[in-house]
Parts: sequence; structure tokens; C-alpha cells
Amino acid sequence: MEIIEVGPRDGLQNEPVVLPTADKVELITRAVAAGARRIEAVSFVNPRLVPQMADAAEVMADVPRGTGVSYSGLVLNARGLDRALECGVDEVNVVVVATETFSRRNQNRGVDEMLAAWAQIARDAQAAGVRAGVTIAAAFGCPFEGEVPAARVLDIARRVAESSPDEIALADTIGVGTPDQVRALLDGLTTAAPGVHRRCHFHNTRNTGYANALTAVEAGVDTLDASIGGIGGCPFAPAATGNIATEDLVYALDRMRVPTGLDLQAVIAAGEWLSGRLDKPVPAQLGRAGVFPPPQPR
Amino acid sequence: MEIIEVGPRDGLQNEPVVLPTADKVELITRAVAAGARRIEAVSFVNPRLVPQMADAAEVMADVPRGTGVSYSGLVLNARGLDRALECGVDEVNVVVVATETFSRRNQNRGVDEMLAAWAQIARDAQAAGVRAGVTIAAAFGCPFEGEVPAARVLDIARRVAESSPDEIALADTIGVGTPDQVRALLDGLTTAAPGVHRRCHFHNTRNTGYANALTAVEAGVDTLDASIGGIGGCPFAPAATGNIATEDLVYALDRMRVPTGLDLQAVIAAGEWLSGRLDKPVPAQLGRAGVFPPPQPR
Repeated sequence: MEIIEVGPRDGLQNEPVVLPTADKVELITRAVAAGARRIEAVSFVNPRLVPQMADAAEVMADVPRGTGVSYSGLVLNARGLDRALECGVDEVNVVVVATETFSRRNQNRGVDEMLAAWAQIARDAQAAGVRAGVTIAAAFGCPFEGEVPAARVLDIARRVAESSPDEIALADTIGVGTPDQVRALLDGLTTAAPGVHRRCHFHNTRNTGYANALTAVEAGVDTLDASIGGIGGCPFAPAATGNIATEDLVYALDRMRVPTGLDLQAVIAAGEWLSGRLDKPVPAQLGRAGVFPPPQPR
Repeated sequence: MEIIEVGPRDGLQNEPVVLPTADKVELITRAVAAGARRIEAVSFVNPRLVPQMADAAEVMADVPRGTGVSYSGLVLNARGLDRALECGVDEVNVVVVATETFSRRNQNRGVDEMLAAWAQIARDAQAAGVRAGVTIAAAFGCPFEGEVPAARVLDIARRVAESSPDEIALADTIGVGTPDQVRALLDGLTTAAPGVHRRCHFHNTRNTGYANALTAVEAGVDTLDASIGGIGGCPFAPAATGNIATEDLVYALDRMRVPTGLDLQAVIAAGEWLSGRLDKPVPAQLGRAGVFPPPQPR
């Protein structure tokens, strides 16, 4: 299993506290030390709209290099891609929202415009030798339009696939999905985008995130997003908890003997450090509950 | 799906705040109104050791009757059974802990003694026309002995089955289990106790509780324990969250079109009321995050 650490981007972007650049770099450095090999580090979006990510270039200038880690930046247009390439990201991720209303509210553009933007970004990123993938947001439900038909998500996946993405992620952005839906969408994705690597992104807003993640693993997905501490949330789902927590996911996978390459104790320690920096408890439970079996006294 | 509401017993027993009798009765009344048809209402254990349950008789005297609800009391010995029968419970539940150390610390008796107690209670309860079942506690792991071999759990199930239980529950008392373990233990239980109704009891201590519950449903289990608000915990797992929350479980099952007979909004309201009585946020997330799809404005 490959766990993409999204705490530095999806996590911190949705926290009210804006951490200083040095803390962001430390979070990334801790993730690398714990064994993370893909990290969604920053986003290159309008700093006026997303001040949490305004220092993306400074963060990227200071992350540990030469460790085999692939750093990803979120981009939504050509300008963002230019900035990402200047910073030396290893991959870019484009978010296409599955519903028109959420797309316009979140990105000020409709779904068709975002698909056109993706096609352009894919071409330019591939020309620059940088991997490019798409996250289909609100694939399991929309805070504005409610139910999102699977056919709509899969139609977007089909159109995304025309530009040869390295990966398509299905994202339960507002944390409403359930395992049956995970199975159905993943099945559909295999048909809609044959041969494209599948990735999943879950939030634990309604306590279904881990069930969804483990169902995806069972369905053959080998790349999942998670954030240290389970930080984050969603600006359109107030009081919601964030991404599934890296430490809690690694705990479950360790117990199920699914290798992740991550050191659980190091991830827990990073979550506790992050809790201190954000000055609040994090949603991850391993830091509080402790590992099992308990470490033996010497 | 039958969801046994265990908040009044397993939930409240493990909360630091002791609610007055009237509040316990209100919690039960709210559960009944929300559609619960089996409720673990009280325990008949030593009131010096478990002061939270000292008013079991008073609670049982005031619960709504004639609604088709089956009320269960936890008993650990003949004295407890006598008190339970006097109170007019519809069923009794006996806890047999899977490991020697936890059994002695929790119940001051070893596993063999508890199995003998169960045999006696089963005889007497059946003679009185009251259903009797067993919960095998720490079936997924022990806070003292660590890993619990499946063979040990299944051997206990075999011996429990000799006294014709109406039901055997597998309990992840300290919230360490994972879905693969759920599947393996449930498979084994079918062989160890053929024909005995299977029930599962999960805690969400390490964020695996809902994944385990939905895995059990998939494995054919049609009876799950849950507590309104997800209250509770475990005296041997400090800072741990409690049972899986009734409202969060019902949300997932509703979305998966698995009927539970419970009214989600009524359960959420009960969880919010309980949060007020306990003067703290409850672990359940539906109260904070809200249902999906969001109710339509008229």
C-alpha cells in the first residue's frame, strides 16, 4: 500500500490556524522520516483565496530532497502549473469537482471548463516530464446538489482519461460515502478509465472513512490519501473532521499485515507534534489510545 | 439489522458522570421512541464496584413497557440473575472474558469459573423463561495479555454453546480489532457454536469500529451493539472512545439500504440530549456533521 501524505496540503489548507513555513517544512520532514514516499506538499492556487498555501514556493525550497520522495502540488490552471514547475514538484494534481454547483463555488469555473483546464495542464506537465493526475471531488455526494449519480462521476473519469492521466483519484470530499458506493464506483472506474491507476481519498466526517478505505484496499486499490493527525476538514462541511488519519490507517493496515512502509510510532509522534502546533487535539485516535499490542516493558 | 442499544448499560457504566435514574429512564425512553427493540438497560453487578448501575431496579421499574421492546440486564452470578428476574428483564447477558488476566481483574474470577457461572445462569434463566446469551469480551485483543488467539475465543464459544445460549456476541472490548479478524472469528464461530445466533460488539477506540461493524454485516451478522452518542469507553483503555455510535451506524446502514427500524433523526436528537446531560461532546459524528443528503428546504 502506498499512502499519500496529504496533511501538508489538504489538511493544513482547511485548518483555521495558518502554520509558519518552517512548521510546514517540519511536518513534511517528519512524514519523510516516517517513511512517506509521496507527499501532497502544497497547492499553487490564488493566494488571496487560499492564504494558507501562499508560501508554497518557500515550502518547496526547503523540503528534504534526494530521498526518493515524490512531491505533489495541486494546480487548477496554467499559471499554477508554471509555479509548480518552477518549484520543482515531481507531480501535479488537478481537482475536477463532480458537480456543477460545487465546482463553481469552489473553483469559480464549471466542470467543462475544469476538464479543459486539465487537458491543457496534462499536455504541459507531460511535456515537462512531470506526472499529472486528477482528483474527482465530491464523487460520493455534494453539499449543494446532494446525491451524485455514479454515471456522472464515471463520465468525468472517461473524459479525464482522454488526456492520459497517471492516476485518477475518487474523493469523498465531504465524508458521506459508504463501502457499497466505494465498490460500485471503483468497479465503474476500471471500465471508464481502463488501465489508469486508481487512488482514493476519504474523509471521516461521518465515521465511514476507515470502512471506505479498507473496502477500497479489498477492491484492489493500492494508493490511499491520508493526513497525519487526521487534520483538515472541508470549508463546505463545517465542524466536520478531516481526512482519514495516517496513523489510524497505518494501525489498521499493520494489523491486517498490509505493508505500508510507514513507521507507526513515528507517524503517531508527528501527529502529536502537529496537535501541539495547531493547539488542539487532532482527530486521529492512535495518539490517545496507543498501539496494540502494547509495547512490552523490558 | 437489529441494533441493540447498549448506551444505558455499557455506555453509562463507563462514563465518569453518574446520571440520575430519571435521566437513564429518559435515555431508554428516547431509544424506544427512536425505534430500538432491544435495549441493554442495566447491569446487576456489585453496586460497590459499579456504582453507576446501583439503581438498576429503579430504572427497570420505570422503563416503557408493552411496546415490544426486549430489555436486557447484565448478570455475572446467581445473585445477579435473581435481581434481574425480580425486575422483569426479558433477557440476560453474561460476560465471559477471553483471557485469564482480564477476567480476574474485571470480574475477580477466572475463565473456567465464569463458564461454570454461565452454565448455572443459563439453566436458571431458561427455567424462568428468560432468554440468556453470552458476550465473549476481549475477543479481539486483551489489554493485559495482548494478542488473543482465535482458537481460545472459539474454545470458549464451544463451551458456552453447551448450555444452549440464545446468542453469542463477540466483543472487541478495547477496540483493537480489524475487519480480517472479524471475518475469521465469525467464520470460526459458525463452526464452534453451530446454529447459535451471532452478535457483534465493537468499540471505535482506534477508528476501526465502523469498518468492523460493516464487515460483520457483510458476513451475515444481523445483530450489532451500539450506543447512542457513542458514549462509554473502557476502564482498562483510558482516553479511549466508547462503543460505535448508534446514529453513525444507522447513517451508514441507511445509506447502504440496510433497514434498521431506527429513525436517524430521533437517534441524533437523543445523542445531542445525552451530550447535554453528560456535559461534554459525544464521539458520534452525525450530530455535528448532519445527515446526507441534507434535508431540502420547503
